[in-house]
Amino acid sequence: MWADLLPVGRHAGTGGYRRFAWTREDATLREWFAAEAAARGLTLTLDRAGNQWAWWGDPDADGPGVVVGSHLDSVPDGGAFDGPLGVVSAFAAVDALRAAGTAPNRPLAVVNFGDEEGARFGVACTGSRLLTGAMAPERALALTDGDGVAAGEAMRTAGLDVAHVGRDDETLRRVGTFVELHVEQGRGLVDLDRPVAVAGSIWPHGRWRIDLAGEANHAGTTRLADRHDPMLALATVVQQARSAAERHDAVATCGKVRVEPNGVNAIPSHVTAWLDARGAEPGNVRAVVAEVAAAVTGASVTEESWTDVTRFDRDLAARLAVLLDDAPVLATGAGHDAGVLATAGIPTAMLFVRNPTGVSHSPAEHAELDDCLAGVDALTRVVAELVA
Amino acid sequence: MWADLLPVGRHAGTGGYRRFAWTREDATLREWFAAEAAARGLTLTLDRAGNQWAWWGDPDADGPGVVVGSHLDSVPDGGAFDGPLGVVSAFAAVDALRAAGTAPNRPLAVVNFGDEEGARFGVACTGSRLLTGAMAPERALALTDGDGVAAGEAMRTAGLDVAHVGRDDETLRRVGTFVELHVEQGRGLVDLDRPVAVAGSIWPHGRWRIDLAGEANHAGTTRLADRHDPMLALATVVQQARSAAERHDAVATCGKVRVEPNGVNAIPSHVTAWLDARGAEPGNVRAVVAEVAAAVTGASVTEESWTDVTRFDRDLAARLAVLLDDAPVLATGAGHDAGVLATAGIPTAMLFVRNPTGVSHSPAEHAELDDCLAGVDALTRVVAELVA
Repeated sequence: MWADLLPVGRHAGTGGYRRFAWTREDATLREWFAAEAAARGLTLTLDRAGNQWAWWGDPDADGPGVVVGSHLDSVPDGGAFDGPLGVVSAFAAVDALRAAGTAPNRPLAVVNFGDEEGARFGVACTGSRLLTGAMAPERALALTDGDGVAAGEAMRTAGLDVAHVGRDDETLRRVGTFVELHVEQGRGLVDLDRPVAVAGSIWPHGRWRIDLAGEANHAGTTRLADRHDPMLALATVVQQARSAAERHDAVATCGKVRVEPNGVNAIPSHVTAWLDARGAEPGNVRAVVAEVAAAVTGASVTEESWTDVTRFDRDLAARLAVLLDDAPVLATGAGHDAGVLATAGIPTAMLFVRNPTGVSHSPAEHAELDDCLAGVDALTRVVAELVA
Repeated sequence: MWADLLPVGRHAGTGGYRRFAWTREDATLREWFAAEAAARGLTLTLDRAGNQWAWWGDPDADGPGVVVGSHLDSVPDGGAFDGPLGVVSAFAAVDALRAAGTAPNRPLAVVNFGDEEGARFGVACTGSRLLTGAMAPERALALTDGDGVAAGEAMRTAGLDVAHVGRDDETLRRVGTFVELHVEQGRGLVDLDRPVAVAGSIWPHGRWRIDLAGEANHAGTTRLADRHDPMLALATVVQQARSAAERHDAVATCGKVRVEPNGVNAIPSHVTAWLDARGAEPGNVRAVVAEVAAAVTGASVTEESWTDVTRFDRDLAARLAVLLDDAPVLATGAGHDAGVLATAGIPTAMLFVRNPTGVSHSPAEHAELDDCLAGVDALTRVVAELVA
């Protein structure tokens, strides 16, 4: 399975993955998912949000089931593990259960959530947010990519029934418990010298767009005193984001910038910067954003998303930690579809697999084979417990 | 004439012009030039560098002539005047000479230089540099645009004979004197309360690419202490460029930036910034670049272009200033095709038309109608003097 996925959407220059929602690469990944489901005799369904489900058993007849999986899309030049490790491990857990002769007492499914990273249309977890109704379909369909293509148009081109996109109660009723396995994106397990952890919570986090207005002018003939150069404001935003995050025990990143017109010999007319801020305490995250905004006169700050702290089911997490030989319970700064489902009231858990460098959202993202196998083993034990 | 040009390549959203070399818009502008030449019975020729010439008289039979003109392309979201004012004024000067019954004793031409701004392929004055041999054809043809299209391929698609691109001695022999009229790109004439000036020199100027390496990682899960974020280095570059320019009586601009992968939730792996620096003293310009480079550890600085001070023909400038009622003689921080021809040893002059705000390379660029007419009148007097 893993080898089949490796070439899809891999950029020859960077070695990173460019698997964006509703593209040709995305269609290839969905075909792969459908083929894996068919090879195991699982029943493939597509929900109203464009997520793929592969059922073993009938959740409509036999009550809500256990769902395991993750996503297959990537950030620009992302790594091979963020997302696919969870989907591949889910299929591998099905195989392990069957190899052990386990007959589930509850239906079991593998899921592939669409557009988790939000790399193309700017909003993360669109597939799970649409499914649970956390995001209105009108908003999701109207999002546009860098080429001005609307998400609705991209979905239609990919064959989705756009008129029915939205919250899908029929699908939600089938999900009794959701477990997402994911490569860790920090060094928590490295520091603890353990291969697998259970997630406790997701930090509150948000995205803000900061518009910095300037005045376009000639780079050679405009006196310094006459300039209104928004690049200077950008420099202040970048530095203030770092220093405010240090002061407030949070993290803040300015990873995306748009400069207009972006010409070598033109003072920019406008710079747009995006600020990503997260931390254990929501008040601290808010303070970082407020201090960045206050540092630049005339900046326009727009909140594009905000997610308060997400606590996974405490009893379930505790039960899984015991089951997995007292696995550590870790908080994370990364958002996940599991967080969206937990917020929607579905009993949800996550497992993290050790990342030897902590690097993620990068071609250098890695997990050792032994740790991946430990992850599959842990997921198999969890599923066996939940379907028993 | 002016009204015909206004819609070509105008962006509905910004109101600025996007007239890039060897595009559909460029072809439309070239058709316009050919039609204006035909309407006046001028002989149209295309040189080996893709520049258009419209001759009144035969420079091969009757010796080198007087050439007036400028360019029709633009920077991204540029103004209507930078370039086209010089070409339109040149045709208008031909009309004025004929209306006055002037019969030139020397051949006279209007020229449209290709790709002056370098907006698409990154190098300014490619048309005039190829013509004079200041730029090797191999280098020009190999330049690529933002989509990876080579300039040679773009030229071939536009119908140019790529095998013969290069220095064109036959064309150069025809040019006895070149005069370029251009909208001023600063406030020199506003301060002097005059409509027209003669150019004295062009400041030394250059472009440098600054590569800032980082390490891609997840914006939510990577501790601040573990980050290698090149956006912080960019902030230093921007601020240092400004402060070093202030210290050294120069101007410096960071107007173009490329962030990789440019994702909201990813610490960038790489940031590339372009520095444009100019000033009256070449040593001061070099000092600015050196101080920017020294401010960022690990930055890789590549000189993409350097043009030393360009002095226009002193006698010609003095003669024109007297002719134009003691017009002021101004230096400029902007490069021009006239500078390239002057460097190649062709007697060359420039006229500047007052810009009420000094704004250029912007949709807000403007010149008052009275000043444009004063420019045409001045150019007509200059041409009448030179062809007499």
